[in-house]
Amino acid sequence: MAISPFDSVMFRELYGDAEAAALFTEAAQIRAMLLFEGALAEVQGRLGIIPQDSAFFIARSAREVQIDPAALAAGTARDGVVAPALVAAFRREMQAPEHAKWIHWGATSQDVIDTGLVLRLRRLLDILDSRLAALADTLAQQASRHAGTVLAARTRSQMATPTTLGAKIAVWAAPLARHRERLAQMRPRLLTVSLAGASGTNAALAGRGTEVMEGVADALGLAPSPIPWHAARDSIAELAGWLAMVTGSLGKMGGDIILLTQSEIREISAGTGGASSTMPHKSNPVEPETLVTLARRAGGDLSTIQNAMLHAQERDGAAWALEWMALPALCMGCAAALRHAATLAQTLEAAPERMRADIDATRGMMMAEAATFALSAHMPRPEAQTLVKRACAEALAQDSTLGAVLPGLTDVALDWDAVLDPASYTGDAPLYPGRLAPQG
Amino acid sequence: MAISPFDSVMFRELYGDAEAAALFTEAAQIRAMLLFEGALAEVQGRLGIIPQDSAFFIARSAREVQIDPAALAAGTARDGVVAPALVAAFRREMQAPEHAKWIHWGATSQDVIDTGLVLRLRRLLDILDSRLAALADTLAQQASRHAGTVLAARTRSQMATPTTLGAKIAVWAAPLARHRERLAQMRPRLLTVSLAGASGTNAALAGRGTEVMEGVADALGLAPSPIPWHAARDSIAELAGWLAMVTGSLGKMGGDIILLTQSEIREISAGTGGASSTMPHKSNPVEPETLVTLARRAGGDLSTIQNAMLHAQERDGAAWALEWMALPALCMGCAAALRHAATLAQTLEAAPERMRADIDATRGMMMAEAATFALSAHMPRPEAQTLVKRACAEALAQDSTLGAVLPGLTDVALDWDAVLDPASYTGDAPLYPGRLAPQG
Amino acid sequence: MAISPFDSVMFRELYGDAEAAALFTEAAQIRAMLLFEGALAEVQGRLGIIPQDSAFFIARSAREVQIDPAALAAGTARDGVVAPALVAAFRREMQAPEHAKWIHWGATSQDVIDTGLVLRLRRLLDILDSRLAALADTLAQQASRHAGTVLAARTRSQMATPTTLGAKIAVWAAPLARHRERLAQMRPRLLTVSLAGASGTNAALAGRGTEVMEGVADALGLAPSPIPWHAARDSIAELAGWLAMVTGSLGKMGGDIILLTQSEIREISAGTGGASSTMPHKSNPVEPETLVTLARRAGGDLSTIQNAMLHAQERDGAAWALEWMALPALCMGCAAALRHAATLAQTLEAAPERMRADIDATRGMMMAEAATFALSAHMPRPEAQTLVKRACAEALAQDSTLGAVLPGLTDVALDWDAVLDPASYTGDAPLYPGRLAPQG
Amino acid sequence: MAISPFDSVMFRELYGDAEAAALFTEAAQIRAMLLFEGALAEVQGRLGIIPQDSAFFIARSAREVQIDPAALAAGTARDGVVAPALVAAFRREMQAPEHAKWIHWGATSQDVIDTGLVLRLRRLLDILDSRLAALADTLAQQASRHAGTVLAARTRSQMATPTTLGAKIAVWAAPLARHRERLAQMRPRLLTVSLAGASGTNAALAGRGTEVMEGVADALGLAPSPIPWHAARDSIAELAGWLAMVTGSLGKMGGDIILLTQSEIREISAGTGGASSTMPHKSNPVEPETLVTLARRAGGDLSTIQNAMLHAQERDGAAWALEWMALPALCMGCAAALRHAATLAQTLEAAPERMRADIDATRGMMMAEAATFALSAHMPRPEAQTLVKRACAEALAQDSTLGAVLPGLTDVALDWDAVLDPASYTGDAPLYPGRLAPQG
Repeated sequence: MAISPFDSVMFRELYGDAEAAALFTEAAQIRAMLLFEGALAEVQGRLGIIPQDSAFFIARSAREVQIDPAALAAGTARDGVVAPALVAAFRREMQAPEHAKWIHWGATSQDVIDTGLVLRLRRLLDILDSRLAALADTLAQQASRHAGTVLAARTRSQMATPTTLGAKIAVWAAPLARHRERLAQMRPRLLTVSLAGASGTNAALAGRGTEVMEGVADALGLAPSPIPWHAARDSIAELAGWLAMVTGSLGKMGGDIILLTQSEIREISAGTGGASSTMPHKSNPVEPETLVTLARRAGGDLSTIQNAMLHAQERDGAAWALEWMALPALCMGCAAALRHAATLAQTLEAAPERMRADIDATRGMMMAEAATFALSAHMPRPEAQTLVKRACAEALAQDSTLGAVLPGLTDVALDWDAVLDPASYTGDAPLYPGRLAPQG
Repeated sequence: MAISPFDSVMFRELYGDAEAAALFTEAAQIRAMLLFEGALAEVQGRLGIIPQDSAFFIARSAREVQIDPAALAAGTARDGVVAPALVAAFRREMQAPEHAKWIHWGATSQDVIDTGLVLRLRRLLDILDSRLAALADTLAQQASRHAGTVLAARTRSQMATPTTLGAKIAVWAAPLARHRERLAQMRPRLLTVSLAGASGTNAALAGRGTEVMEGVADALGLAPSPIPWHAARDSIAELAGWLAMVTGSLGKMGGDIILLTQSEIREISAGTGGASSTMPHKSNPVEPETLVTLARRAGGDLSTIQNAMLHAQERDGAAWALEWMALPALCMGCAAALRHAATLAQTLEAAPERMRADIDATRGMMMAEAATFALSAHMPRPEAQTLVKRACAEALAQDSTLGAVLPGLTDVALDWDAVLDPASYTGDAPLYPGRLAPQG
Repeated sequence: MAISPFDSVMFRELYGDAEAAALFTEAAQIRAMLLFEGALAEVQGRLGIIPQDSAFFIARSAREVQIDPAALAAGTARDGVVAPALVAAFRREMQAPEHAKWIHWGATSQDVIDTGLVLRLRRLLDILDSRLAALADTLAQQASRHAGTVLAARTRSQMATPTTLGAKIAVWAAPLARHRERLAQMRPRLLTVSLAGASGTNAALAGRGTEVMEGVADALGLAPSPIPWHAARDSIAELAGWLAMVTGSLGKMGGDIILLTQSEIREISAGTGGASSTMPHKSNPVEPETLVTLARRAGGDLSTIQNAMLHAQERDGAAWALEWMALPALCMGCAAALRHAATLAQTLEAAPERMRADIDATRGMMMAEAATFALSAHMPRPEAQTLVKRACAEALAQDSTLGAVLPGLTDVALDWDAVLDPASYTGDAPLYPGRLAPQG
Repeated sequence: MAISPFDSVMFRELYGDAEAAALFTEAAQIRAMLLFEGALAEVQGRLGIIPQDSAFFIARSAREVQIDPAALAAGTARDGVVAPALVAAFRREMQAPEHAKWIHWGATSQDVIDTGLVLRLRRLLDILDSRLAALADTLAQQASRHAGTVLAARTRSQMATPTTLGAKIAVWAAPLARHRERLAQMRPRLLTVSLAGASGTNAALAGRGTEVMEGVADALGLAPSPIPWHAARDSIAELAGWLAMVTGSLGKMGGDIILLTQSEIREISAGTGGASSTMPHKSNPVEPETLVTLARRAGGDLSTIQNAMLHAQERDGAAWALEWMALPALCMGCAAALRHAATLAQTLEAAPERMRADIDATRGMMMAEAATFALSAHMPRPEAQTLVKRACAEALAQDSTLGAVLPGLTDVALDWDAVLDPASYTGDAPLYPGRLAPQG
């Protein structure tokens, strides 16, 4: 099937991401769950809860056994979760009933599935964090490189006053360091073992639940969970929010690139372009569009995850499954977005002559604020504004420029060439690239 | 990969649906697109726009050629859409360059992809409609069967006054006929050909665009599109809304079944139950939970599709792709929900003794409204309410029942056994099953 | 308070709409609920269920009584719904206890609130429908007026081939007629009385529930509801979807206008513009931005309404309230969007010289497809494509135009001026305005 | 108007919150914006950018002037933002043109509006944090109080094994400490001044932008923003996610209370109850329903805020306004939810006899896992499971209990009374209350 483009062989190079996808295959899901079962057995063996040799056997089998995901489909449909079928298959495949009976001892479906998820998320976060760092560095370099490249700022879809390409890129890059900070803060809350048994009490572990839970956490390098998170899904919601936020920041960058690479503007180029089936001269903004698509679609998943927080009582099959419906797509969307953003950041080139031409095409109107502020040193600001507005109107009416009209309308003596030079009016923009923190 | 549970081999029997899924395989997507290309060539051949023998050859090849979806991945990543790679592969596979050059003549990516989608949706709507009809009929039968089965209505999670299981089922069933009506009304708006060329003008068809578009529509059994819908996506939004609405109605039924099958209530049973990995006595409500999950997740996709309506200018790669991200999942969720709902409807059984026991456990409180209304014939309603409230309070304080206490608090002579018999106070509920329209 | 901009006195001229807002004041809500109570009493009086003179008195009072919404706040907080406090206030205000006791006889909160809502929605739909008709007509006139106004189509944010402004406007207008058709089809499903009593059985009406329900429906000009819709909210979901769809279609128009009025493009003007606090020369696209905002925000409400469909059992306070959280905003957003769209449609002006300048700035590249198709009559299409691509590349390299380069690269003799004239390659676009159905 | 229930005088005691609402009145919005203007002037006066006496005059006026929000409506509609009208009104109201001209010097709409928002959010976060702390403490006390109160855990809507009310409450409370931790970490990222001028460059401040920005940040007690966040809205998205997460955690608590207070269960009571208009005996779960409603509706706003992250170029009117549409409602929803949750936490009472009765009603089935684990010490677990399953089946068939049947089916000698005592099988649950961190 291919209900999700993330899963389609046709779309996998566009929306997919090989490195992240490897964490979401059924094989990887099974592997991570078996890793939990192995660690559980080892800890329980060490604590004398199950026989040591069974523990050893289970732990080794958990690393070696091959379980066919398709063989779990019927059981998953019967139970609504994959765990019972997985445990049964593991038992069967071990071909050692005397040991197999100790598998999954005292654990519940949610323990194995949630811990398995967290183990894969840990690896995912490493991938995403290193991509964020690399992207931030590439953008910082591009920002520095273009610290003095002057172009029109656009506010509310209108050319405003000048800015620099470096400042624009710095605005794309600045959130990335914040996202990394958020990630570091979120990590200990998210990367937490789940081991609390059927009702979240670890009753089946007969008073040794905390020991076992801490042991498994330690074995897997996760934080312990002194109070179970079976039904407290805030860490999942936080992760979803973080993934959407990162994807959203990249969507903003993608949207800007689409606007700056419009045929009529082409002030930058970035990405690899995409062919039109009938218009050979077009260069479609494939990567930027993809960033926008991934950023907007994340909003739908966020609302799904929000509903997943309303987890009824001790464990809730319906709310839990909502996470499965939305979280992997958020993960993949974020990974794919970072991949495309890297391509865009690396390939971004400026067309300064196009930037200048667009500024010039405003006949100096873009410098109206500069002129207003310059005049404001010599007259009340409203008066300056009125004067500049009149100059703009006359320039438009006469098919002339602000620079040609304005000096004639005032006695104030200013170095109009300097005042109206776009490069003279970029303010602090050239400083922004230098303010990006190195990501190392 | 298995980013979406809809695509996972582990989950396909739970969330999937073989019949609907067959319409969303890459092979089915390619087949539907080739069907468009074949019809396009045939019509253009007949109109003399392309050579007749090429048209014949293309049309036949479109039915026979095998294209490997994986081979389209690189092209799809390059272009952001699958069409150019598909057309190129089709040309190559035909191994007849002299004919192949006439493939896709004058059409654009969106024409072939959107028409291909519509062709598959037509089949999907047939499937869904016949399931809706069957489900409505099954529910109507169950409603009739339980027209006199009395149980407590629950309003705001509290036992209210009596109703019947038949009425409850009728409330589940009533929207289904409306959904079928909506579907019939939506069909001609949705099942519309897309053929307007690169910019939505059919300019490449040199004045014969309308003829070709109408011919292709006719050949494929679709409605024509006198004005292109490349960038007017209301029919897609309408479909998404309809799919979500159907899934939502079934989610309501699923939620009710979860509540009625709680361990403490078990007034009905339905579905196949699901095993707990540690609690052998439990019977998890797998199908009802799935209905709830599918209904709630649809909300996320709806918000994604809403954003897809903001399709920029003549064609918008980013907005269009949002549809691909959300629409197939809505389709599959609806199909799977109808499948599970059918199972639930067919297997639903009542436990009238449990229903009666729950009513009795209220010590007659559930009949307070009945008593109030009966008394209101003899005194002002506020006075009757006060009296009944007092009787309820005393019954609770004395560990007694309303029926034991109330007669002693009033001189009004009523047949209290009759007044307080739950079956006497089901109002029009027994009539509702008979008001369900036969779906045939 | 002003949590919602729709409710803010500062924003009411931007996002509000006086005509629609009048239906959502607390006074209007109360008025509509009293209308229900009046009709209920009248019907019950006529049927002899309550005393005729009380019925008469209640019906008249329902039209005349003034109830202070603020006085209902405490009761609403206590009950979670406004109805009990409203009924109590109505009883009190009537100052005729002997009649007052017959108010709301047999009805439940949901009956009065939902029927009151439907009464207001009926009026709203009339308003929206007439605005849709007027907007469709204005756009049809503008489309006809600009049927021959040639500009560049933009696909995937790139200039593609020529189209006409008339075609573009026709694409905006075409969905409006479909929305009106949907509205007409939805109307009987939505405009339905709610009268089913506490548990949806009308038990309190002692066997006369159906008569009363039909009588009230008739009195209020609504459809009857043979099976209660207390817990079957598909008609609300359908309405929400329709409102969002309309708003989405207008958002697409708004987005297009933003793009076409960018400083660098200005091929059209529309709306009243908005001042920048510091840049006097800018003309911010206030109305188009508002259309985009309203269209995108509707997606959030859609996902809320989807969750509201999961209405538990006979009546569900939590799910019902979700509708109150989202539906009025969808109504207002749609009304405000239609208002702004009307302004934009009425004020839209073309700048044909800017359109032509943008086309010319591509140095003929925009006509590449036209050239390819023209050449395809004389050579295989791939060969034509290759040739045109080469000509484009050379023209760009030589700072020349396609028209200057292409003829020299081929022996095919074509009237190149005609082939490369944008107006010659608008295909069926000039026909689209004529295909818009008159809305009358 | 009252489009949003948050703004309705009828609903304000239900969904509103006086303390939080005070931050969202138009008066508070204006006050916060004037606070910015005053600080800006003071800093600019100190730096010699504007005249000292004008700075003094502006700063004082900013504290004293009264501006009528309704008078800003026309300007807001014209400009799409409130700032220009506000600045103009401030200028006018000052009645000192010689000073007034220096108001808002070099700033842009977004500077004043966003900084004004942040100032109000700072206060809101203080309110929310102290409510979180208080709620966590109340819940911790209740958890301790009920550390030994045994009731059935419910998993997947089925009674599972025993747990304690203290553990259940601890699961509600545990996320609150994490939310406070997140809040502390988010605070410096969110509470950041906005001051970057029209195009985000502070060009109008002529090289002194950074000084002014830092000075204003310092004066207002906010963090500086070395790179402007006009178009980088991650801190808003983070806040929205946090608000939704808190509301979601409370919704989970509300949902649990609804389930535990169902008429058939009533194992706890909490909240004030709500009257039914026709059923005097009912006690509607008004506060818990409200928690659920607020939690679910937050999902819609999250998807809106996600779209607001796609902020075009330097400043984007449409994306920015999306925040206004969703953020205040998320704030109010969170505040109101905390208010209701506090009431519920304070009034929560247990009904241990009801808890015990529900456990007993399972005829010991709830202790099946306990029996299985006890037996597993003496036989392979699958064998134990089979045995217990058989005992359960026989007990059900014979209308008997597990405790009566099971001992007869096995030779294993166990203290069956102890094994089957619910209180003996609550595992670590009694420890959870002690693991809640004190919030102080």
